[in-house]
This record gives sequence, C-alpha cells and structure tokens, in this order.
Amino acid sequence: MRHTDLDILISGGTLLAMSEQMNIIENCLIGIKDGVIVSIQTKNGQVSSGNSPKEIIDASGCVIMPGLINTHTHLPMVAFRGKADDLPLMEWLHNHIFPLEARFVNKTMVYESAMMAMAEMMLSGTTTFCDAYFFEASIAEAAQACGMRAVAAQGFADFATPDNPKYEKMMAAADRFVNCWKSYAPMITPAFFCHSPYTCSSSTLVNVKKAAREAGILYLTHLLEQRDEIEIIEKRYGKQPVRHLYDLGVLDENTVAVHCNWLTKEDMKILADTGVGVSHNPESSMKLAAGVAPVAEMLERKINVGLGTDGAASNNDLDMFREMDSAAKIHKVMSLNPTVMSAPEVLQMATSGGAKLLKLDHLIGSIEVGKRADIILIDMNQPHLSPVYNYYSHLVYAARGADVKTSIIDGKIVMKDRKLLTIDLPKTMDAVNQIAKQIAAQ
Amino acid sequence: MRHTDLDILISGGTLLAMSEQMNIIENCLIGIKDGVIVSIQTKNGQVSSGNSPKEIIDASGCVIMPGLINTHTHLPMVAFRGKADDLPLMEWLHNHIFPLEARFVNKTMVYESAMMAMAEMMLSGTTTFCDAYFFEASIAEAAQACGMRAVAAQGFADFATPDNPKYEKMMAAADRFVNCWKSYAPMITPAFFCHSPYTCSSSTLVNVKKAAREAGILYLTHLLEQRDEIEIIEKRYGKQPVRHLYDLGVLDENTVAVHCNWLTKEDMKILADTGVGVSHNPESSMKLAAGVAPVAEMLERKINVGLGTDGAASNNDLDMFREMDSAAKIHKVMSLNPTVMSAPEVLQMATSGGAKLLKLDHLIGSIEVGKRADIILIDMNQPHLSPVYNYYSHLVYAARGADVKTSIIDGKIVMKDRKLLTIDLPKTMDAVNQIAKQIAAQ
Repeated sequence: MRHTDLDILISGGTLLAMSEQMNIIENCLIGIKDGVIVSIQTKNGQVSSGNSPKEIIDASGCVIMPGLINTHTHLPMVAFRGKADDLPLMEWLHNHIFPLEARFVNKTMVYESAMMAMAEMMLSGTTTFCDAYFFEASIAEAAQACGMRAVAAQGFADFATPDNPKYEKMMAAADRFVNCWKSYAPMITPAFFCHSPYTCSSSTLVNVKKAAREAGILYLTHLLEQRDEIEIIEKRYGKQPVRHLYDLGVLDENTVAVHCNWLTKEDMKILADTGVGVSHNPESSMKLAAGVAPVAEMLERKINVGLGTDGAASNNDLDMFREMDSAAKIHKVMSLNPTVMSAPEVLQMATSGGAKLLKLDHLIGSIEVGKRADIILIDMNQPHLSPVYNYYSHLVYAARGADVKTSIIDGKIVMKDRKLLTIDLPKTMDAVNQIAKQIAAQ
Repeated sequence: MRHTDLDILISGGTLLAMSEQMNIIENCLIGIKDGVIVSIQTKNGQVSSGNSPKEIIDASGCVIMPGLINTHTHLPMVAFRGKADDLPLMEWLHNHIFPLEARFVNKTMVYESAMMAMAEMMLSGTTTFCDAYFFEASIAEAAQACGMRAVAAQGFADFATPDNPKYEKMMAAADRFVNCWKSYAPMITPAFFCHSPYTCSSSTLVNVKKAAREAGILYLTHLLEQRDEIEIIEKRYGKQPVRHLYDLGVLDENTVAVHCNWLTKEDMKILADTGVGVSHNPESSMKLAAGVAPVAEMLERKINVGLGTDGAASNNDLDMFREMDSAAKIHKVMSLNPTVMSAPEVLQMATSGGAKLLKLDHLIGSIEVGKRADIILIDMNQPHLSPVYNYYSHLVYAARGADVKTSIIDGKIVMKDRKLLTIDLPKTMDAVNQIAKQIAAQ
C-alpha cells in the first residue's frame, strides 16, 4: 500500500508489538487505514514527500504499543472517588457505597461520570475497558460518543438495583440492552454480569448464563474477592463457591471471574478445565484488604488472566500503568520470589491477555497487520524513563499514565499531546463536580 | 509583614499544612522571604495592587503542601535503572549490581546520575532526600548546584568500595567529608552509613558510630532487608541482628535503620526504647521480594517512620506519590485490615515523619510560619483527581509525581509549570545516556 492511501502514518519510535513473538522494531513505520493496521515496516530513510498520508504522527523518542485493556471497571464510581476510604469493608459497602448508589445513581450521573472516567483512561493509555454497572446503556452511549472500545455488561443481583427496582423486569431489560448494542455499534460489545454467587440466587446465575449463551456474549461475575464468601456459600449450599458455580453449569470459556483472591488448587483446576478466564485487580484488593489472587499459579496452569483497576472508589484511579507496577510487585513479595510476574508477562496481561479474556483478540491486544488500530505512544524522553536498557521494564516499573503522549482507538486519534480530542473535558468535569456537590452535601 | 517585603507570595489554592493540627486552609496566602515561610493567611478579597511581592504564584485549583522527603536513596543507581530485573536477589546483586558498580561508578558517573535523579525528584514533588552511596561528596555537590536539600551519607563496608579501595583510608575520607560539608552548606547535612550488620564488622559498626557521635551527625544502616540476614548474624555472633547492634551500643535516636522487614516484637521494643527511627521502602522490598516491614505496629509503638524509594535499580523510579500509594495499600492487604495506614498517616510519613527521622523537623516537613519554604503545588484540576471529597485520599491514592505543578525549595522556585529552572535537563540526560551506552556495551 502506498502512503498516499493511509489515514495515519506513525513514523519513528520503537514498536513493542506485544504479538506472540514479542518483536521489537526500532525506528518503525506503521500505516493505518479505515481503522485497521495495514502496514508495519522498518523506516529506511525519510518518507518521500510525494507519498503523504492524511496525517503523520512523529513518534521519535516514543514507545509505540497496543492500547491497554482494563478488564474490570465500574466507571461511574469515579463520582465517589475518595468519598469513603480506610474503612472496614462492610462499613464501606453498607454505610457508604450502597446508600450512595441507591440515592445518586441515575442515567445522567452514569453518563457524565463514565465520560469523565473515559477521559482519565484515554489520558493514561487505556483504549478498551470492560465495565459492569447499572444503567449500562448510558455507559455504552458515552463510549460510543467519545470513541472508546467497550465491553458493557448489564448487571444482575437479587436485590433492587438503582436501574431496575423490580427484579422481574431485569431479564427483559437485558434482552433489550443486547439487541440494541449487538449489531448496532461495532466498538461496543454487550455482556451480562452477575454480581456474585452470594448476591445472586442459583436460578439467577443459571438463567442469566442461559441468556448469555443464547446471545453469544460474555458472562461475568465477582468471585472470591473476600475470604468470607467461602463460609457464606458453604453455609448456603454445602460447597465452596467455585464448585457451586461449576455444579450450576455456568463455568465455560465465555465466563470471566473477577478477583479470585481465595482460589484453592482444586478451584484453579476447575477454572483451567472449564476455560474460565480471570480479571485480576490487585490494587483494589490491596486497598480493601480483600486478598491477593494466586496469579503466578494461574498463569502456570494456563488460565487466561487480564488486568483491571476495579472502580475508582476502591483503587482510587484508573491508571493501568500503576496497576501493572503493583501487579508485578505484589506477587513477588507474597511469594518471596522476585522472578515471578516479570515485566513482559505483566505487559502481556494488560494487552494481549486482556484481549483474549474479553474474546477480542482477533481485533486488538497487539500491533499486527490486520488488527484494529488501538495504539498508544509513550514519551520516553524523560528522566524517570532514562536510560533505556529494557523497554518492558520501564513500562511496568517506571512509566505512568501521564507519560502517554498520544492515544489512537480504532484508527482515530482520541488524545494528542495530552489533549483530548473527543471529550469536552471542562464540561464533563463540571457536570461531575455538580453531582459531587449534592453527594458531599448529603 | 507587607506583601512588598516578600520574595514570593503563593496566592489561592488549598493548604494542607501537615502540621500537628493537620489544618487545611482554603483559598490561602503564603508569604516567603529569605527562604522562610513568614506568613500564612486566608485570602480575603484580592491582593491590592500596591503591595506587589517580587513573585506571585497563582495556586488556584492546586493543593499546596510541604515537599516530600525521600528518606532513603542511592541516587546514582538511576544509571542502572532497568538493567537487571525479575532476577533472584543474589544473582541480581552479585552478577549484576556489584560488578556494574565496581566497573562504572566514579565521580563523574555519580555526579551526572545523581543530577538526573534530582531532576526526576523535583518533577515529582520531592524536595529533600537522604542518600547513601559512594563518592557522596559528588552527590552533595550536585544537590548544592541544583538547590536540593540533602542528607548525604558517606558509606562504609568491609570490602573494597569504588571510591575507597583501601578500607583503612575510609575513616580519614569520612572526616574530610564531614568537615567539608557540615558548616559550609546549610542545605547539605552530612551523615555516615554503615552498609549493614552483615557487610560491616563489629569494629566498623562501632568506630563509625563513635565518629558520628563526635561529629553530631546521623548514623544509617540497612537492617533486616532480607530474612537471610537473621541466620547470617546468628551464625556469626550467636544473636539476632537488632540485639547485635544493641549490644554494640550503636542504637540511639540518631540512628536510622533502613528497611526493617523482619523485625520481631522484641526488636521493635529495642528500637522504640533506644529511639531508633526507621526508613520504610515498600516498593523496593516488594520488587526484590525482600519482605514487608511491620509498619503499622511500629507506628503503634511510637517508632518514628519515614518513607523512601531506595535506589532506582530496585523500584524502578523515585516517585514518592507512587511510594505513598503502595505504602497505604501493602499493609492493608498483608494484615487483611483496610483501616491501617490511612491516607493522612501515610502523608505524614512522607512529610513531617521523614523530617523527624532526619532530625530536620525544626526546618521542614510542614508549612508553618518560621519553617524553611520547601513547598509543592499539585494541580487538582484533572479528571483522575476529581471530584474532591478528601484531599489526603487523592494525594495518596490517585495523585502521581506528574501532577506536581511547581516545586519550591528553601524559598527558591526550582520547577515551575513542569519546567526545571536549576537543572539543564537535556545536558544531564545526555551525559547519563552516554554512560549508559558504555554500560549496555559491556
């Protein structure tokens, strides 16, 4: 393909493709056309002036890598960021988060807060997220409006939720949600989310999985975030949570279990055998003192693991660079083994691993010809990223969201030189601050 | 004092004084004259045009707080950042770090690398550091040149070090070091650093402490970073490391023990009784899989604890905001108690706690009239720091070094709007990159 046919040419810089070969190309040229990566070459001399693509991005001094994939978020919770911290978990949840959600979560709040969360994500290198919350259609609308790639999971629980006070209506609403988004918007993938084995009855867990199978979509659930969950489920069903889900028949390769801090070896065997993937959220589980997932062992057992931040009320940011750093470090100290969770492994978890987990690896997760152009540029010309011996190491242990210079999603530049191009940031922040005033005044 | 007499007036913004009262002043005015904070007021209306200080800093939308104090660094190790990661500790140390130091550490390398490290620190809100390395005079010179406040500790160990191949000459060199810096430069505080109980003989530990007492300076040592140290010291001396140091008489309120990951309750009692302070470096100890210090219990026992990053070869950055985040989270998950290490406690550890540890609390660590003006401004008008319910929470759990807008040290602006004013950054980075080329080629 000639450069004249390109929408975007990324010129110079160091490509970390994050493909299976983990190839690194210095001084590269990447061509993008109609949202797709159409060419990856080594730059030989200058691009001749006759072959001008519509836009050239100078990436000299930058690392070029796939956009980060945040596999677990509750985006609108940015509106509660810092409202309640350092509290016992049940007090945090029942005296703060649940009452705040009951009172303040509505369509407008969800849309505006999710939009601010997307601004934060674009500015810190995330190009795809998997969200689970209430009024999920509003989150899908916000993603659609600003051009982010999203898996949007409509939530289920056996208690009145802010969007569907009557449980009976949930299933019908979910059907409408899937039908609306499945064929309508290629950047939005609908999914279903059962809150947990302890807040969803067996029939809810089974019925939602049946509907997810019929629709051919992902099925997500929180699982074993807290140790207490084991006792609750054992009392109720006479077995441990993973075995309970297995016996209900809801575990398969389209199921994503979130957290999994308290898996036994038998649990891991079940997840590996059934093909269930895991979303690992280390910072949230550290802050909530929930536990540490046995990720190194999961990876040994070939369980697919993606990385996520969880909601901003328990993290308290959506910066996947910080999450990578914590993921690399927490497992080393827990096992007293500094060789586990190497920088390349963690970077895979945040890119190609996340794409596999969300069944989007045919589209994203690596920079290869034919994949969609979800690409970020990291400015390496900074003292905290100098000198460079090993790019993977710097990206995991020293880079941070603010080092992302440019973000491209589906071939469109959404952030350039730290400026957002598809979100009116002052307007969005003002809308969230207005909501926050009411929350603070309560 | 009238505003006309001021060198700098910080106008607007929210002051987190980090004084004992932990007072917060919205929309404040802070006057600085001859390096000292001379006035703190609430802003009532506009400053009248007749009262112009030499420089007005508009802090609206910012948090104003004391500069962060990094209580343990090996600054020149930024030159080895990312050179060796994810390795077993002994392989990392003996096959990588020690050979690199033997071959590449010299006065020029130390000066240039330390200068780049100071650039990184200024850009991420650190205004004071306590460093321990070889050729420490070169680090003091670099700090003096760029206007950073430093405790510079000359190192001792019973093996040939890059700066003093003959151990016998160490003491004389150390004396010269102290005499040179003690009265000469008010921003530089000399100190002595015994590498550890397992690399320093009893006589070295005792003689260096004697010299430190005579000079009236701090005495630092690594202590119980790795669990193995217990067995080594028990084999050699028939007792555990803290008891060994206690019996040698080197523990007092001018001793700083670094790491302390494997303290027993008896050890903590000894530290508390003797007044020894502790430098806590959570990220380095996580990455090296060294262990987690029992900090919550130390604080309960009124042991003075400051925060530090350690060297960039084991962290891999010098960002104290990230260090605060990790410090707040790691102890929660280790104890499965989300109420330990609250955000205000962690912020104290990184400011007033660090100042106390380094015996500089009469000068720095809080923003109070009469203290030296070591002040940073954090730009809160960003999506990842919105909305604001609790400043402490945001600074610990969501802010990062890149959010620091302006840094003032001893009443001089060293970084403004992310631009360094006292360091030629391209020149410094180029010098370090040249050194790194030789390191990479070996």
